[in-house]
Amino acid sequence: MNDCIFCKIIAGEIPSSQVYRDERVTAFRDIQPAAPTHLLIVPNKHLDSVNQMTAEDAPLLGHLFFVAKQLAAQEGLAESGYRLIVNTGAGAGQTVFHLHLHLLGGKPMSHLVG
Amino acid sequence: MNDCIFCKIIAGEIPSSQVYRDERVTAFRDIQPAAPTHLLIVPNKHLDSVNQMTAEDAPLLGHLFFVAKQLAAQEGLAESGYRLIVNTGAGAGQTVFHLHLHLLGGKPMSHLVG
Repeated sequence: MNDCIFCKIIAGEIPSSQVYRDERVTAFRDIQPAAPTHLLIVPNKHLDSVNQMTAEDAPLLGHLFFVAKQLAAQEGLAESGYRLIVNTGAGAGQTVFHLHLHLLGGKPMSHLVG
Repeated sequence: MNDCIFCKIIAGEIPSSQVYRDERVTAFRDIQPAAPTHLLIVPNKHLDSVNQMTAEDAPLLGHLFFVAKQLAAQEGLAESGYRLIVNTGAGAGQTVFHLHLHLLGGKPMSHLVG
């Protein structure tokens, strides 16, 4: 957990392009964007992945969605559309093992998986 | 809302391959699977999309994640990995306007968007 890059970003030990912050979640721009808008919305509390969540974490994970909705509007994506993705496990493309919600928009997206 | 295909599935008016049901959510297999495992996890309450959610819906949306975690384990995907996707708007690939969480697994997934 001390080596977690997202924990360090949340703690301000590593710089990021932060776009939102509250007592439960932090959002910043992905440094390797896969779309014109590509934000990462992460719980301030460390959870490796969805596999680690308990029923008690459900309101926190729902709050990630609510923040995503607000940031999508702020980025001008409410009408054009946006995709929210959470990868669990390396086989699904998870590269940082601190649960995070990708918010992607600004280009047409049809196929669910490439 | 009366014409919503997912509301009809939830009400049992249209058949589905249901895999889970509780008082808040229903899960069933996608009829056009994009991966070996492709489930749809849907709130029983009709919401067009994430755009329509309020802060009060956060615990419900978090519960979709918690159900997804349990179904992923049931499908044998906890170790191999899985991807959770919510599309908002036609431009992002949303085809049914009743909010739903895709659970995809059983094949390697690297790129976030195709």
